[in-house]
Amino acid sequence: MSKDPIDFYFEFGSPYGYFAAFEVAKIEADTGRSVRWHPFMLGPAFKKTEQKPLLQIPLKGPYCVHDWERLSLITGTPWVMPEKFPVGILAAPRAFYWINDNDPELAKTYALAIYKAYFGDGRPVWEEGECADIAAECGIDRTEFLDVVQREEVKQRFKDITSTVIDDGVFGSPFFKVDGEPFWGFDRIDMMKQYIAQGCTWVQENKR
Amino acid sequence: MSKDPIDFYFEFGSPYGYFAAFEVAKIEADTGRSVRWHPFMLGPAFKKTEQKPLLQIPLKGPYCVHDWERLSLITGTPWVMPEKFPVGILAAPRAFYWINDNDPELAKTYALAIYKAYFGDGRPVWEEGECADIAAECGIDRTEFLDVVQREEVKQRFKDITSTVIDDGVFGSPFFKVDGEPFWGFDRIDMMKQYIAQGCTWVQENKR
Repeated sequence: MSKDPIDFYFEFGSPYGYFAAFEVAKIEADTGRSVRWHPFMLGPAFKKTEQKPLLQIPLKGPYCVHDWERLSLITGTPWVMPEKFPVGILAAPRAFYWINDNDPELAKTYALAIYKAYFGDGRPVWEEGECADIAAECGIDRTEFLDVVQREEVKQRFKDITSTVIDDGVFGSPFFKVDGEPFWGFDRIDMMKQYIAQGCTWVQENKR
Repeated sequence: MSKDPIDFYFEFGSPYGYFAAFEVAKIEADTGRSVRWHPFMLGPAFKKTEQKPLLQIPLKGPYCVHDWERLSLITGTPWVMPEKFPVGILAAPRAFYWINDNDPELAKTYALAIYKAYFGDGRPVWEEGECADIAAECGIDRTEFLDVVQREEVKQRFKDITSTVIDDGVFGSPFFKVDGEPFWGFDRIDMMKQYIAQGCTWVQENKR
């Protein structure tokens, strides 16, 4: 049976991605597989699926606001509605791949710190300076961080990664792939675990 | 603790509603609560949320086709992609409320028969004659059925129910409410059961 890492796709501005990120350690423990993190831009995916940001959708918007509050109670992951939401968050994911090149563990710590700062503490992570502060809190050089996120090749790399992710069928956050098998949404984590537990095959459990 | 029925909202043309309908007996057994069935028209809800039918959405459409196939394997509920999908299905839900007035149990049997005919056997339930056949298979008078679904007050009643359902915040199929607490989607059934099991309150399980 494959022991390849599970791929985890997320957008830093996505509440459901946030709740999923804080489940990753448990996913790794429960499945015996590691998880590979892939931040991407949800905006171009929403353009392709013609979806608006959740809060702008009648009926669904209010449902989601309530859902995030109860997911916080269920999971124990803290939750605040940030002052700006939705908002473009670019420096954070650009820097992620730069950090990841040298130290994947640090990159995950940093990603969780960004998420926690935004949706747990309401900090303005859409500002580069704030992201640099959070990076520094993780032991990353603040000045180098601010330089890196403005480099053209760093910006372009993140755009290219986003295009590839969407071309490969990812249209939401969180989105997981297990040897290519796709799972969209926070509420599919249990189904993904079950899939792995039974040897990555869909077993017909009962006939009707 | 409330023992009021769980409200189950669904559209006969919705694959996720179909899979949920065949979980209802298990939901009742697991929660000790009965389930009250409410077919409605998803079209007006999609108009409000500006959503297209799933198959017309790039990326999400192919994902869902795959998802329905695997949900069939997981749940044991049979699945075929009907020849016409999506398609307006009106006689079936109109008749549901008429049957339900006199015999709620028969109405549920009939609803499951319609769903099974459409998504399990690929029968053309968008045709009134086909629905009348299915009704007759459930022991309902075929001639009376065909008369009832064309009555103006029966048509209007179904429109009014749909408006009320959407005004009350329902925007997808399946959609459940437990004493008003909303659960959208087939993949929230477990969360709903957990909510009921812990006394209809969101307990903070672990702090981070």
